Amino acid sequence: MSPLFRTTARDPDSSARAGLLETPHGVVETPAFMPVASQGTVKALTHAQLESLGARMILCNSYHLSLRPGVETIEALGGLHAFTSWPSPILTDSGGFQIYSLSPLVRVSDEGVSFASHLDGTRVFLTPESAVDLQLRLAPDILMCLDYFPSFPYSVEAMKEAVRVTTLWARRSRDRFETRESPSRLWGICQGGVHWDLRRRSIEELLEIGFSGYAYGGLGIGEPKTHLFETLEKGDPLLPRDAPRYLMGMGYVEDIVEAVARGVDLFDCVLPTRNARNGTLFTSRGRLAIKNARYARDPRPLDEACGCYTCRHFSRAYLRHLFERQEISSAVLNTIHNLHFYLDFFRRIRQSIKSNSFGSLRECIISVNDTI
Amino acid sequence: MSPLFRTTARDPDSSARAGLLETPHGVVETPAFMPVASQGTVKALTHAQLESLGARMILCNSYHLSLRPGVETIEALGGLHAFTSWPSPILTDSGGFQIYSLSPLVRVSDEGVSFASHLDGTRVFLTPESAVDLQLRLAPDILMCLDYFPSFPYSVEAMKEAVRVTTLWARRSRDRFETRESPSRLWGICQGGVHWDLRRRSIEELLEIGFSGYAYGGLGIGEPKTHLFETLEKGDPLLPRDAPRYLMGMGYVEDIVEAVARGVDLFDCVLPTRNARNGTLFTSRGRLAIKNARYARDPRPLDEACGCYTCRHFSRAYLRHLFERQEISSAVLNTIHNLHFYLDFFRRIRQSIKSNSFGSLRECIISVNDTI
Repeated sequence: MSPLFRTTARDPDSSARAGLLETPHGVVETPAFMPVASQGTVKALTHAQLESLGARMILCNSYHLSLRPGVETIEALGGLHAFTSWPSPILTDSGGFQIYSLSPLVRVSDEGVSFASHLDGTRVFLTPESAVDLQLRLAPDILMCLDYFPSFPYSVEAMKEAVRVTTLWARRSRDRFETRESPSRLWGICQGGVHWDLRRRSIEELLEIGFSGYAYGGLGIGEPKTHLFETLEKGDPLLPRDAPRYLMGMGYVEDIVEAVARGVDLFDCVLPTRNARNGTLFTSRGRLAIKNARYARDPRPLDEACGCYTCRHFSRAYLRHLFERQEISSAVLNTIHNLHFYLDFFRRIRQSIKSNSFGSLRECIISVNDTI
Repeated sequence: MSPLFRTTARDPDSSARAGLLETPHGVVETPAFMPVASQGTVKALTHAQLESLGARMILCNSYHLSLRPGVETIEALGGLHAFTSWPSPILTDSGGFQIYSLSPLVRVSDEGVSFASHLDGTRVFLTPESAVDLQLRLAPDILMCLDYFPSFPYSVEAMKEAVRVTTLWARRSRDRFETRESPSRLWGICQGGVHWDLRRRSIEELLEIGFSGYAYGGLGIGEPKTHLFETLEKGDPLLPRDAPRYLMGMGYVEDIVEAVARGVDLFDCVLPTRNARNGTLFTSRGRLAIKNARYARDPRPLDEACGCYTCRHFSRAYLRHLFERQEISSAVLNTIHNLHFYLDFFRRIRQSIKSNSFGSLRECIISVNDTI
């Protein structure tokens, strides 16, 4: 496998690294945050707004898109890039997470996973092979193996079984992928929860199969944060230095910076976009609930330290008014702000690694759970 | 009253004219279309998007804004321009239209209008004087007199009474306005339906009082279009040439061009923005309902002749998908398209008057009610 990822700077005091991830649709500077575009659009934003915020790679959900408008439609229109007109890299997930979290009547066997569509109950059977095929028809830059994990809390036995199935499926995914001609890249997902012996086994088995990138799956679903960080810390030396690592679905900035310190390069989360629509805004001084009555006549921007379009033009009073009136522009302006906050945070992470100041950035993180 | 409007070109074959309307927040080229920003935002768009579409003057509803967030809040924040951050001209209506169309228990007397808030039933009493005061606290560029009209169909007697009350209120509005120091301008509204004797009386009485601009009110509410155009045609020579004329609430392009031909300079309507959110798109070949199944795999833009952001980047298939998924970006992209259609239409009207080709533009209008 040709090298598609190279490290350009390393933090001397942690495993944080800055890198360049090559994809068919361009290079992504890492550590990187992928805004979530479940339906092929980052909710509330135009692509132009998203690009001007500095977003590069976005995440699309193959589960949602294959149900509606359907993989046939997207394939007929030339794949996800042609369909959505997003010009930069796209990563698709395998659909596993949505199946386990949204679908009723999920049945997992060695063969694959059977589930009822959350829309109309139609029975669907997905195998590792069909998950690869389906994603290749969507034609993303990066596709993910179908994996399996039990819901939290889980027994060690259940997790052991999940790792066995995940490895079996990863091998079959890789085998299927190898039979296809595609510029896309297939990444593997390790499981094992926070049981190090299981997580290690999962990583080692994935490495033996060999992927272009490696994702940590099944983390951040309820287990203690210290166990999570310990898992990343132990996983770091096992994973090859020249492969990108992706921590799926983790979104709190205080966790992200700790994951970066443990060698993680790629993140995605609905937190900035979903919270924006709910009126929860991230600022350099903590979290702000715009519906709060005390902002009704507040002429200040959301964050006086922020340079986003929303903060350069609009007061908390106006943003509160738009939120209260359920104006569409409330969702738009709040999403611009929250995504700017995240993408700017990642720019600062990358810059700090390059300028040997990641350690001090790490010390100054304000939890997004603090309220101003 | 200093001249605030000057004609820069006239169509030789009709009363169509191109002009410049001066306001405290800049010059508006006429004929002009005002996007409706009831709550201080054009629904679904950021101001940046609105400006890049070429919008200049927008219309805010003093009825909605005075109920929420309240005139005290907007005044405390420095008026509508400071509150909304809209840098260009703003016109406010008096609230009359919303009172007569939204509020229950409306009682009109010579003194003023009493109504129940459509939100919580709170009894509100508005006089011509308080409507002026309220709007001046919002500090728009142009404010409108409180007027009165009966709902359609109406008796001649009811309309006669409406004209009497409207004139009475117009005089009191003007008197109150004269006692205030403000860079804003007060415009009068004539009533009379399509009864020419009543409409003429209303216009003549308004002219006697004297305003910076004149609006036709109570038209386009159900009366036959031929009667409406006849009213505008007869009103045209009565109204001073150096005053702008505003036809309130009329939105179909085929009507707009006929109104322009009868000397009207200014328009507003929710049609392009509301229809956009409902998935009805205006194109150079007629109206298009994006939810239609036949667009599911249609790779073409909404309108091949359109240069808007939406048409330059997105297919009907993608726009249908966004509409079906009720994505916020569906409302955004559709609104960009429909407002571009309207604002571009007005640019073409102005250009045609300047280049002596208004007649041929007028002949080529495709009804927006035609479906492609």
